[in-house]
Amino acid sequence: MQAAVELITVGNELLIGKTLNTNAHWIAKRVTALGGSLRRITTVPDDVEEIASSIREALRRKPWLLMMVGGLGPTHDDKTLQGVAEALSRPLKVNSQALEMVREKHRELLEKGLTLQRELTSEREKMARLPQGAEPLSNPVGTAPGVMLREENTLILCLPGVPSEMKAIFDEAVAGLITEKAQVQFREESLIVKKVLEPELSPIIDEVMRVYPQVYIKSHPYGEEGHYHIELHFSTSAKTGGEALERIRKAEEMVTELVKKSGGEIQRSEG
Amino acid sequence: MQAAVELITVGNELLIGKTLNTNAHWIAKRVTALGGSLRRITTVPDDVEEIASSIREALRRKPWLLMMVGGLGPTHDDKTLQGVAEALSRPLKVNSQALEMVREKHRELLEKGLTLQRELTSEREKMARLPQGAEPLSNPVGTAPGVMLREENTLILCLPGVPSEMKAIFDEAVAGLITEKAQVQFREESLIVKKVLEPELSPIIDEVMRVYPQVYIKSHPYGEEGHYHIELHFSTSAKTGGEALERIRKAEEMVTELVKKSGGEIQRSEG
Repeated sequence: MQAAVELITVGNELLIGKTLNTNAHWIAKRVTALGGSLRRITTVPDDVEEIASSIREALRRKPWLLMMVGGLGPTHDDKTLQGVAEALSRPLKVNSQALEMVREKHRELLEKGLTLQRELTSEREKMARLPQGAEPLSNPVGTAPGVMLREENTLILCLPGVPSEMKAIFDEAVAGLITEKAQVQFREESLIVKKVLEPELSPIIDEVMRVYPQVYIKSHPYGEEGHYHIELHFSTSAKTGGEALERIRKAEEMVTELVKKSGGEIQRSEG
Repeated sequence: MQAAVELITVGNELLIGKTLNTNAHWIAKRVTALGGSLRRITTVPDDVEEIASSIREALRRKPWLLMMVGGLGPTHDDKTLQGVAEALSRPLKVNSQALEMVREKHRELLEKGLTLQRELTSEREKMARLPQGAEPLSNPVGTAPGVMLREENTLILCLPGVPSEMKAIFDEAVAGLITEKAQVQFREESLIVKKVLEPELSPIIDEVMRVYPQVYIKSHPYGEEGHYHIELHFSTSAKTGGEALERIRKAEEMVTELVKKSGGEIQRSEG
């Protein structure tokens, strides 16, 4: 049983091309390596209605895990929790555990002389206002706690958009859940094919995938005519890493044989 | 009237974290610079049903332009046009103009000795099978033509995923359409704020955005405690670039004044 995961990344900066979505790339890689299956990534603006509608659409597909990244901070444009509250028709309420986390961080900042505000302002308190039924996840490197809640059979996890904070909470609170749920190992390998063009390689890939249906083979052409090569990317998931790798090796052997037969060259990818 | 744009990027490689979605970043930047408003980015796997459902969802939001990137090539995993056909209930048919483009490319490859296949195989022909009513867009740097079609009030444009091909067709066939539709100029500027934390900056941003509601201000915190700074990103669109920039300048002046009043430092971003 595959652990189906969806990701929603929130932020105008992603939609105006100011920021490259390296968070999505990092999460995709990690989820896959842990045995999870990322099915969709959606990027929406800092807009409560857009966030809420993307959550509703994701929940209709019933993923095991819905991750949200970005929009948990103290400012007016941090709207992810409002979007979650709206999508699930739950009120936002100050969560006492989250409030303690935010307070503790504020105390540290005060002690270090990094803030002059002695009182916990409404902007700081905002980070502790969670949708009803949610639990905060401790943020080891920043103020805004992560947020975990459940809606029917989907676990919803909201992480901050600052990459160091996102990664810290993922590693602490999310990675273990995926490993436990997935119980499969993902493996990938690449071969480089030269002197055969993609349309000519296509029937070879089809044939190998008929014989090894569990191995997914995808071709990625690189370069210009004449200096053209194709990366063939093999991936599969199995109970053990050894089993997954063995399956890939067999598919690679068959591809190698067929490519050579049709006049092509093969080398192992150095990537 | 804003030119609402949606983008769907297709490819397993994006969902397993093999490939960073630089295509989405490039398109987001270009669409915004041309005056368009990118409302959502969705990434789906090489799966006809997933592609089709993401198109149906996007069309429900009635964007002026729906761009699709990836999955136009000759191999079994290139499924974008099948997804479009499925979503719009239109058959896939060989388009004579597209077929001529694919033939022409094949002739060139033969002449240069880059392929040994003398006949146009079904894999090559596949790139000319378009949803009924679609037009091909010439691909100056590769074989697979881009595809343009209309569904109700939405223009659908499909571009190949190879970055050089995507960019070439975008610049040739898409950029002009956006400029013509949008008729606004986008401008952005950044200030760097030091010695004020994000929760303290938040009410200042709110106040400035109340006075200049057309300017969008977003804060991006960087660095660790103690060496912490915040980038304040200002953006707006107006009939002319001069008007847009003037609006931003006024908002920047007000922010600068308020930040200094609360003990912070401001400098112009060098980014």
